Amino acid sequence: MRIGIAGLGLVGGSLALALRSRHEVRGFDTDGAARAAATGEGLAAVDRLESLLPADVIIVATPMRAVLPTLAALSPHAGGAVLLDVASVRGPIDAFARESADAARLVGMHPMAGRAARGFTSADPALLAGRPFLVVPTVRSDADAMAVAGNVARDAGGVVTVCSASEHDRIVALTSALPLACAAALAATAADLGTTVAPFVGPAFRDATRVADTPAELADAILLANAGNVVAALARMRTVLDELERAVAERDTDGLREILDRAARGRSLLG
Amino acid sequence: MRIGIAGLGLVGGSLALALRSRHEVRGFDTDGAARAAATGEGLAAVDRLESLLPADVIIVATPMRAVLPTLAALSPHAGGAVLLDVASVRGPIDAFARESADAARLVGMHPMAGRAARGFTSADPALLAGRPFLVVPTVRSDADAMAVAGNVARDAGGVVTVCSASEHDRIVALTSALPLACAAALAATAADLGTTVAPFVGPAFRDATRVADTPAELADAILLANAGNVVAALARMRTVLDELERAVAERDTDGLREILDRAARGRSLLG
Repeated sequence: MRIGIAGLGLVGGSLALALRSRHEVRGFDTDGAARAAATGEGLAAVDRLESLLPADVIIVATPMRAVLPTLAALSPHAGGAVLLDVASVRGPIDAFARESADAARLVGMHPMAGRAARGFTSADPALLAGRPFLVVPTVRSDADAMAVAGNVARDAGGVVTVCSASEHDRIVALTSALPLACAAALAATAADLGTTVAPFVGPAFRDATRVADTPAELADAILLANAGNVVAALARMRTVLDELERAVAERDTDGLREILDRAARGRSLLG
Repeated sequence: MRIGIAGLGLVGGSLALALRSRHEVRGFDTDGAARAAATGEGLAAVDRLESLLPADVIIVATPMRAVLPTLAALSPHAGGAVLLDVASVRGPIDAFARESADAARLVGMHPMAGRAARGFTSADPALLAGRPFLVVPTVRSDADAMAVAGNVARDAGGVVTVCSASEHDRIVALTSALPLACAAALAATAADLGTTVAPFVGPAFRDATRVADTPAELADAILLANAGNVVAALARMRTVLDELERAVAERDTDGLREILDRAARGRSLLG
């Protein structure tokens, strides 16, 4: 297939590198340095979004704030192209699909993969290999478009799960927003305490705060664009923290053990 | 010096391996397999605690529940030996030193180092190299005993900081108990949700829950033996979580940004 990729950052770049052996891939980025880096890796890069068309598939892999404008710009001219987007929160895309007058087909394809590094220079097909890809229909997805999204996800190395936008957003509130919220709360507590505690912090604390380094825009997308689900997920976790605090305050060894046993079961589920 | 080490687990074994090039080291463990493993590495291992004496220094590196009984057994027979212990909570040791009638000198020497693996077979001098060692006086520490503790810590590869038992316990409530509480709360939340969410969990979530695998006895020591400081530390972190939840619920971008900026400052302090 002719696949255009809008946004050659970590995810878009990794998709481009993973898909090029089986497909005719062209990439676009607003940043000349990203285009040059992609060209340096032997990818075809264009300097106008519209130059990705005509295509069979366009994957929108821009930062969150640019996803809807990019879909809006592409939709009227999409022709037969299926528009996929990797947005990590589906609510806003779902609403856009309902409200848009254009006929272009839209499907979400969210690779559950990431790392702290950013940009095309960190792109790596290995980032996607074996990872879950959530394929999320909109009101503008037909069976053919869903099949195309599944094929692209598998060709990129992903393992496909189809779910609704609301299921997707409940899942990512738990898998992405909760660890981010914990890491931010721990790291902000360390900041408040300053230099009296920092020298004694070990690998456990550092690991636990790693995702606090999530870029600001992505953190806003994960937390604010999915606020309802995130508040519900936080409430769930704070119930456990409440139990744990009560057990510690009351020196309730059995109560604490029960919570830590549940935590161990949770860890074993995570594989 | 003649150094006896009671407890040849991860920390005691690592201390033995780190100290043997400069000192005459003997180890004791109640577990024959641990003694055999130590002997296999060329260490002298004895099968009775008392056989560590006479010595210049005894390091008690048993699990938390055995620290006070071991100190009580050694104290009447210590002679000139300085008794060091690596207990990760100082309150109980501090109380023991005040209440004990024996004259043996007691100093805490807590290496701020750890890993999930346990036992002598995981022992490794590299675990201690460059790590902070908190040297904590008791009422039964004199200047000579403090100097001995400092020398042993440095010879084991540590970087020495002297602090009081109450400072120590406030610090570890923040550096050890908070990440453990967060990891346990996240992992228990994942357990409650079961198989609907686990397949979609990525490296961020797994890293954030890693220390939930802390062995039960160590987790009890970290959380319950230091309950007062842990409750205070949890309250501090929950204040930040409250702020974060409010910012998300009210879609307060600026408020969220302020918290995430503080978290980034915290991360940069941690080096």
